[in-house]
Parts: sequence; structure tokens; C-alpha cells
Amino acid sequence: MSSASRTPRTIGIVGLGLIGGCLATDLTQLGYRVYGVARRTATVEAAIAQGIVTQAGCDLALMAATDVVFVCTPMAAIVPTVYQLVEHLNTSTIVTDVGSVKGEIVAAATNLWPNFVGSHPMAGKAQAGLTAAEAGLFQQRPYVITPIDKTRSAAVDQIAAIATQLGANIYTASPAAHDRAVAAISHLPVMVSSSLLHTCVSESDPHVKILAQQLASSGFCDTSRVGGGNPELGTMMAQYNRPALLQALHQYRHQLDTLIDLIEAEQWSALATRLSIAQQERPNYL
Amino acid sequence: MSSASRTPRTIGIVGLGLIGGCLATDLTQLGYRVYGVARRTATVEAAIAQGIVTQAGCDLALMAATDVVFVCTPMAAIVPTVYQLVEHLNTSTIVTDVGSVKGEIVAAATNLWPNFVGSHPMAGKAQAGLTAAEAGLFQQRPYVITPIDKTRSAAVDQIAAIATQLGANIYTASPAAHDRAVAAISHLPVMVSSSLLHTCVSESDPHVKILAQQLASSGFCDTSRVGGGNPELGTMMAQYNRPALLQALHQYRHQLDTLIDLIEAEQWSALATRLSIAQQERPNYL
Repeated sequence: MSSASRTPRTIGIVGLGLIGGCLATDLTQLGYRVYGVARRTATVEAAIAQGIVTQAGCDLALMAATDVVFVCTPMAAIVPTVYQLVEHLNTSTIVTDVGSVKGEIVAAATNLWPNFVGSHPMAGKAQAGLTAAEAGLFQQRPYVITPIDKTRSAAVDQIAAIATQLGANIYTASPAAHDRAVAAISHLPVMVSSSLLHTCVSESDPHVKILAQQLASSGFCDTSRVGGGNPELGTMMAQYNRPALLQALHQYRHQLDTLIDLIEAEQWSALATRLSIAQQERPNYL
Repeated sequence: MSSASRTPRTIGIVGLGLIGGCLATDLTQLGYRVYGVARRTATVEAAIAQGIVTQAGCDLALMAATDVVFVCTPMAAIVPTVYQLVEHLNTSTIVTDVGSVKGEIVAAATNLWPNFVGSHPMAGKAQAGLTAAEAGLFQQRPYVITPIDKTRSAAVDQIAAIATQLGANIYTASPAAHDRAVAAISHLPVMVSSSLLHTCVSESDPHVKILAQQLASSGFCDTSRVGGGNPELGTMMAQYNRPALLQALHQYRHQLDTLIDLIEAEQWSALATRLSIAQQERPNYL
């Protein structure tokens, strides 16, 4: 118990991409000793040159001296990284991650390391990689911590304390609730929006297709924005959050069918009521 | 022929709402005599007070002295207004409208008045009404002119000349092509976007629903924007452009089903290709 409540002094970061780099930047500024591990020597050297780490290297053994480790690798590497990491750690070290889908990761990582806490800082930039890292990325952004029954509450408290120092807004949810919520508000919009673009692309009359391109305005621009984003990111969302995303997609198709039925049946008053509900509810999501 | 090629000096505007008011503002500034007609005396008085009309009243007989009349009423009133208008006009007077759906209006109005030219200036503001009128609303915005076989080319030229003076970008298309294009890029996004909001609203787990509201960010904000807009406007789009919108909605559902199938079948490489196409095509619509 004494070790769990000890204030962390040394924080490890595995994976020095955008999120790892931003964490290193803020945590160094907050006065922590930050130890970074990256796969490539060039990334290690860049992190040292940027002054955002106390020490850095390619060997996970560097994590032996840390109180908390943030695993900031791509989604697919999170659980394998925890697996490789555990042999180097003190039992008191807390391990957390920053993956955008939580269900499978939290279950598997907690089995590998009981002092694991799943988390998802919901911040990002269009650019990826360490060179895009900047201070203050997490300020005023959601930081979702996703404990399960087995998760140690002292470990949750320490991650929450660090996230608070980053200026983030802390939320706590089960991994399943997190994954359903982000399916609805983050992953579903990508699929809905990309299908809008495909509808326009599939227009068979070339004159209509070009006219649509000429007349498209701010409404189309906004509705199609996330659907025209990074395809690897969209694929990863579907791959890692498949059950929750499919559930959201089927629910969406049901809502769309209801709306199509109203237009086919010329139920204009019911359509107006339906659009009014959307108008009234939207501010709850802003 | 001499009357058709005469440069118009006096322009009538029937309906002094946002679009009528903006047209009156710009045309007065351009040096035209502008005669306005509104249903309500208060609107007539406001237009005179704003200095955007030369004369105004509630009686369509005022249009007898005009060279061109812009019908700027709500969609449902356009054809009835042309019907009432024609008894007051000289045969040389060109009548045009500003309705956002063209098929039925252009056919019916041309039957009532052979010197009719359908058009759709694609500009607007969140606020409605004469009080929201401003100069320059049409600058750099599309102005679609939608002639049919019977439309007189001299009349098209004169409407195009006025739209050019307003600073608009002129496009010419058949009413059917116009209606399909705006269904795809303007009306479909409203339905797609409002169905996204309804999917979130219909979440059965209150904890997930509130978490989704807390975590929703810029991606959700943009994708849901037009779906949370004016319900009367959305209903009117569906009502007046029903066949083209239904065609777009069925095509959209087909595109959505294709995407759902890929995720269900875990065809990740095909999904990535599909999202890449959306990413590559989007700049054509910006």
C-alpha cells in the first residue's frame, strides 16, 4: 500500500510518437524525470535533442527505474509491449496505456500486470510523430480512465492525478461503456461521413457529378470532413472496436431507414418532429 | 427580340425575406430601380426605411413597370405567385425565381409565363427575414440557372448578366441535373447527419449516453452540424426534392451496407482502400 500511494517521480514512456512525445514534453515541464523508449535510434536521439526526456534508449530495461509507465505505441503493439515490459519492472510500478479502444487491451494487459490501468487521452493532431509533439495537447481535453473490477484504486488515483496535472478533464468508465461511447461519437461519424463521399463518387451521370463538385459548400465540407480523413486510422477504429462499431452502424441504419420511410410515405409532420429532436439534442454533444 | 435584349432598368422583387432583401440591397446599390412587393405592410415599411427599394407595396400591380421580376417567396408560394403575377406584366418582362429545387417549379412556371427562367442562388445565412439582409451575400457563391428547351436564351443571358453583377459564380444545368446535384451535396447530408444524432439519442444505456455527450468532440460537432439545423428547412428539402433525395438516400444506404459488409467480414485491406478513395475524392468537393 505504501508503494501504491507514493508520489511518482520517474515516468517511463514507451513509444515516442505524437502522444508519447506530447506526454514527455508536458511531464518534463512538470518536473518529472522522464525516461523514453523508442524502437528507432533516430527517434531516441530526436527526443534527447528536443529536451523532452531525461534519458532515452531502445531497451525496455530502462523502465526498471520508473514509478509509472505510459505505453504509447500503436494499438496493435500495446499488449505485446506490456508482455515484454513486465520482466523489467518493480511490482509497484503502474502501467497505463493511451489506446483509443479499451475492452480487449485492459483485460489482456491486467492479466499480464495487475498494476495496470487502461486510459484514453482524447487529444490529437492531423500530423503524426514526434516532430509534431507540442506542450499542452491534453489541456481541456477528455482523459478517460477505464478500470475493471481487478484494477487497483490507488493506481487509478495516481493516473488521475497525473492527468489532472496535464490539465485534462478526467472521466471514469468501464472499458465496454468507453468503447460504445467512442463508437457512437468518433468511429461511427467516420463511416457515416465516408459513405456520403462514396455516394457522390458513385454518381453515374458525369454532368451531375461535376455539378455536385461545383455546388458543394460548407454543409458538405463539414459533413464529409472526418470521412475524408486518414484511412489507416479509420481502418484501425473498425478493426479494434469492431463489435461496438457494428452495433452502432446497425442502429444507425435503423435510424436512417426510419427517416427514409417517413419521406417515402410523405409524413412531413413526423419528419419535421424528427428533425426538431435532432436540433434540440445536438447541443448536449457540444 | 428588341425587348428581350433591352438592358433592364427596373427590377421587381416579390417576397422581401432574406434573399429578396439581399437582392434588393445589391440591385439598388448597382443603380437599378427596385420595386418590392411583400404580403405584410410592416415588411414594406421596413424595406422603404432600409433604403433598399425605390418603391414598395403589397399589390402585385406594382410589377407592371418592371423589366425583370425575382420571385423570392417560400417554395410553396412560387408557382401560385407567378400565376397571380402574369396578369400584371408586359410580355417582355422576364420572371425568375430563387427556389432551391427546380424540376416542378420551372415546368409549371414556364407554362404560366413563357419568359420565365428558373434559378437558384446558393447563398444564405442562419438568420431569416428582411432584418438579416446584407450587401454582397451572393459574391463568390454559385448562382445556378436552370433553363429547359422552351426557355428563351435572351432571358437566360439577362439573368446571367444580373447574377454576374452580383458577383456570383454562374452555372447552367437542367432542372433535373440541378435537383440531383443538390440532393447529393445539400439535402442528403442533412438526413445523414440527423440520423447520426438520432443514433446517439437512441442509446439505451444512460451511462453510455451521457459519456458520449461528454466525449463528443470536433469530429462529431462537424458531422452533426447540418443534421441539427432548421427542421422546417430540412422538411421542405424532402418535400420538394423527394424523388431525387430518395434516390440519393437509397444510393447512400447501398454505400453504407457495402461498408458494413466489409467490417463484418473483417476485410481490413478492402476497408482501407475504400477509406482511401474517400480521402482522395473529398478535395474535388471543396
